[in-house]
Amino acid sequence: MSNPTAAMLVIGDEILSGRTRDANMYHLAGELTNNGIALSEVRVVSDDRSAIISATRTLSETYTYVFTSGGIGPTHDDITADCIAAAFGIPIDIRDDARAILTKHYADTGLELNAARLRMARIPEGAELIENPVSAAPGFILGNVFVMAGVPSVFQAMVAGVIHQLSGGRPLLSQTMRFMVGEGTIAEPLGALAADFPDLSIGSYPFQKDGVYGTNIVVRGSDGGLIDAAMIRLSNLLPEVTDDPE
Amino acid sequence: MSNPTAAMLVIGDEILSGRTRDANMYHLAGELTNNGIALSEVRVVSDDRSAIISATRTLSETYTYVFTSGGIGPTHDDITADCIAAAFGIPIDIRDDARAILTKHYADTGLELNAARLRMARIPEGAELIENPVSAAPGFILGNVFVMAGVPSVFQAMVAGVIHQLSGGRPLLSQTMRFMVGEGTIAEPLGALAADFPDLSIGSYPFQKDGVYGTNIVVRGSDGGLIDAAMIRLSNLLPEVTDDPE
Repeated sequence: MSNPTAAMLVIGDEILSGRTRDANMYHLAGELTNNGIALSEVRVVSDDRSAIISATRTLSETYTYVFTSGGIGPTHDDITADCIAAAFGIPIDIRDDARAILTKHYADTGLELNAARLRMARIPEGAELIENPVSAAPGFILGNVFVMAGVPSVFQAMVAGVIHQLSGGRPLLSQTMRFMVGEGTIAEPLGALAADFPDLSIGSYPFQKDGVYGTNIVVRGSDGGLIDAAMIRLSNLLPEVTDDPE
Repeated sequence: MSNPTAAMLVIGDEILSGRTRDANMYHLAGELTNNGIALSEVRVVSDDRSAIISATRTLSETYTYVFTSGGIGPTHDDITADCIAAAFGIPIDIRDDARAILTKHYADTGLELNAARLRMARIPEGAELIENPVSAAPGFILGNVFVMAGVPSVFQAMVAGVIHQLSGGRPLLSQTMRFMVGEGTIAEPLGALAADFPDLSIGSYPFQKDGVYGTNIVVRGSDGGLIDAAMIRLSNLLPEVTDDPE
């Protein structure tokens, strides 16, 4: 049984220009992993219509789920909703249910629901709304694409709202063992171990802290017994853990 | 005159599983912007041979430069160098110049240059080496693809070594103006302003801090005079800056 797969599409010039450090990818990756869904690819594209449409189509055809972040606000550079609709050839306009949410929100806050804000009620025909408990303007689900905000607090709230309706696989489990030797010392026996456990993903992550080299070995998979077996083998990998530098 | 374009390919299960928060994308984005090169797309893929080869080919054909990070260490999951060679149909083997660098480094540190470490001397035929002043094992340049390490300190050192040999365009300049109003209040006049300056990229980035809503407007381009003109228009956009919430 293979787990469902997912891709993320991050939309926004601010990430690509180095102005903003993306926070949503890291958050979504953790949430999906905890729910047994493998995040297999991430793409970051600019606020460019053809780039968004093309990436949406490719990712939607390739993976079980696609999650987008960014570009659903009220300004001229917020073009995500229209691009997602175009990617699927679905009509899009201001929708009554989304408008009602905005009308109530702006009445409550005493602000005008002007034409720019009303753009946030543009939702493709047939899409399901994603609730926004932070700032009201909804995201939406069209086909297998989940369209969410770029502001991290809103993105996280939207993810929390949809994550439990995804059909996840068996949770992806992982165990980590830390070796105080460089990767090069452990690489050969580790490669042999990885070959013996083809159903597990065994990753090696070097680190250097205060001049000391070390390696974290992370064993991932959905079969806890298999992971335990690999960890036992791993613990016998280095008869004497020496304090080699890399 | 249009600026050269760039893409980044981040290779590594550890980013997609949510174990590690990527730091290299943010660093590279800033460095490229400062050097007049537009980072146009980023892809993150897992340690999967076909995914790496396919992304490398597509990005290499589409953009002026491609920068990869990750997967060039000594362990079984480090498959980037072989995949890049395969993407271009170029032979790869342990190369004498790279082996000499490793031989010297491990002699200096008193460690064995074992078979695993020697894998880091696998360099495609004809590729130019990228110096690694941190931990010796080199990156390389093949065609328009710059292959670098995933460990942030090494990645940053490699970027510093190659950035000045890229032919950048005019530096991308940016100015930011902060409005203490929500995006929805400023969106309409901002859209009109953006339409009047098609050669500039005008981005709107909402924020919320301690319950106060605000919007940063960032004007980017390579013509400083044009940016100044837009900033003057921008400063007159809201006759009275009110302290609206979103």
